[in-house]
Amino acid sequence: MPTENLEYPTKPYSKVNRYDVRGKRNAARTLTVHQTNRKGKATYALKTIHELVNTCPILHVSFNLPDSPFPMMLPMIGQMGSFARPSSDIGDVLELYLHGYVSSRLINLSRKKSGSKGDDLSSGNSTDAPETQGLPITVGASHIDGLVLSLTPNSHSYNYRSAVLFGHAEVVTDVEEKLWAMELITNSVVRDRYRNTRVPPNNAEMQSTSVLRVRIAAGSAKLRSGMPSDEKGDLEDAALLDRVWTGVVPVHYTFGNPLPGPYNKLANPPAYLDEFVRESNLGAKDVALEAATKVMKPKAKRED
Amino acid sequence: MPTENLEYPTKPYSKVNRYDVRGKRNAARTLTVHQTNRKGKATYALKTIHELVNTCPILHVSFNLPDSPFPMMLPMIGQMGSFARPSSDIGDVLELYLHGYVSSRLINLSRKKSGSKGDDLSSGNSTDAPETQGLPITVGASHIDGLVLSLTPNSHSYNYRSAVLFGHAEVVTDVEEKLWAMELITNSVVRDRYRNTRVPPNNAEMQSTSVLRVRIAAGSAKLRSGMPSDEKGDLEDAALLDRVWTGVVPVHYTFGNPLPGPYNKLANPPAYLDEFVRESNLGAKDVALEAATKVMKPKAKRED
Repeated sequence: MPTENLEYPTKPYSKVNRYDVRGKRNAARTLTVHQTNRKGKATYALKTIHELVNTCPILHVSFNLPDSPFPMMLPMIGQMGSFARPSSDIGDVLELYLHGYVSSRLINLSRKKSGSKGDDLSSGNSTDAPETQGLPITVGASHIDGLVLSLTPNSHSYNYRSAVLFGHAEVVTDVEEKLWAMELITNSVVRDRYRNTRVPPNNAEMQSTSVLRVRIAAGSAKLRSGMPSDEKGDLEDAALLDRVWTGVVPVHYTFGNPLPGPYNKLANPPAYLDEFVRESNLGAKDVALEAATKVMKPKAKRED
Repeated sequence: MPTENLEYPTKPYSKVNRYDVRGKRNAARTLTVHQTNRKGKATYALKTIHELVNTCPILHVSFNLPDSPFPMMLPMIGQMGSFARPSSDIGDVLELYLHGYVSSRLINLSRKKSGSKGDDLSSGNSTDAPETQGLPITVGASHIDGLVLSLTPNSHSYNYRSAVLFGHAEVVTDVEEKLWAMELITNSVVRDRYRNTRVPPNNAEMQSTSVLRVRIAAGSAKLRSGMPSDEKGDLEDAALLDRVWTGVVPVHYTFGNPLPGPYNKLANPPAYLDEFVRESNLGAKDVALEAATKVMKPKAKRED
């Protein structure tokens, strides 16, 4: 099977409430401002989900503490990859690597959970026994591509791409794997940065830093693109159409010019950094414009 | 007490592992790529936290399902406000209003939890009995202001501002409060948009849309600004300083020019929209530049 066709299994917790393109059934559309957006799609494709995670500068990581009624939530940096098969394609089966500091609650919990089985903090996981090694965590990666301004507040929306992964986190103990993950994560901040710094990390750095490896159990993504969509009744209201501007405001991240720090000695930013900034900005702008003007076709598969 | 001084109580689940400005104690610094950033600060100030939430286009909302080992995570739109005291300052005690679609799991769970007490999905909340009405949820709001590029991978970081709120969610049943919240949330997407659309929502729209009100139990924020910071040993390595560019790449959201949709009849975007786009872009750029060049002073209070 070609890797671009791999999909995550749909579990009760990972199933995206389906979009209803005909308006006949309910659907969870949390990122519409209200409810009448009909241009979204759900996907379980590894390739789509992994790309969303790897291009998201901040991941939101959630897990349960034994003594709290509320899930914890931490903003973290992370990347999907495969230490066993470093040349894997983005659509292959991959693990998520997250950076952490040794004293953090997440790292400590993950360390405790490594090697223990079947005693997860939350209930209801008895059917997932082979997957329960490690701390159950949930990771969100969201991108905004545009403000979708329609005739009524209820049909306002965002163009967005949002992925969620569910998996079990363990602390990486193998030194080679840890170094490989540090390089992967550093180069996700700025392409090719790692070898252009002082490496390898010294003993103190290796000891004070932990890397978490998350074995993925399931995942899903929701995407919305295209122009506004309104109800027939409103579209037939000529006075309303004459009064309300409708369309999309594209949204994207911009990197500014690199600002040298107090102990920088280089006259100019290096070429790899300038190129990264320029290409990232062009790419981000293109994505937002394309999201506004091209509607993604919902796939028939997995829409039910 | 002046409202700008209000702070959320520090609960075990909300306490930010403190930054160590002297390098003598451990600290959780999840958004440093590795570990040696010393320019962050934690805060529990309502004003700071509420501003981060209200300016964040996507909130990540986490809660537990009874049948899942993993917390759920949804990207949502929301705003802090007070229906009882609409003229409240941003630093006053406020509730968080979240938009949702009636069939979503979050809305259904919140509805079920309304009126029930002391039987939260997670354990350990027995000391919080008066606060347990509603579904326990956690909300994250993160902003990135810059890539902080230092001499070693371990001292790389982001300039960022990230808030987390913990609270109990209930479905808003009062029609006036629901309409007020719909206006609040719509105007958070584009200032002054609500009254420039077809309002009020009709019966079908009111029935298909739910609004959640989250009563906040605790909250915290972590912020990092300023230039890179490296270890003495690396700063004394002249060859390293001659080789590695150090500084900050500012990062901010940009709104593109509004693109008219297929049934738009207006020749130009309205003034309130053009102004919103222009002012938002200038403001976002300023924040990123200021974060790069000005270091926030850690407050002595609450740092221990």
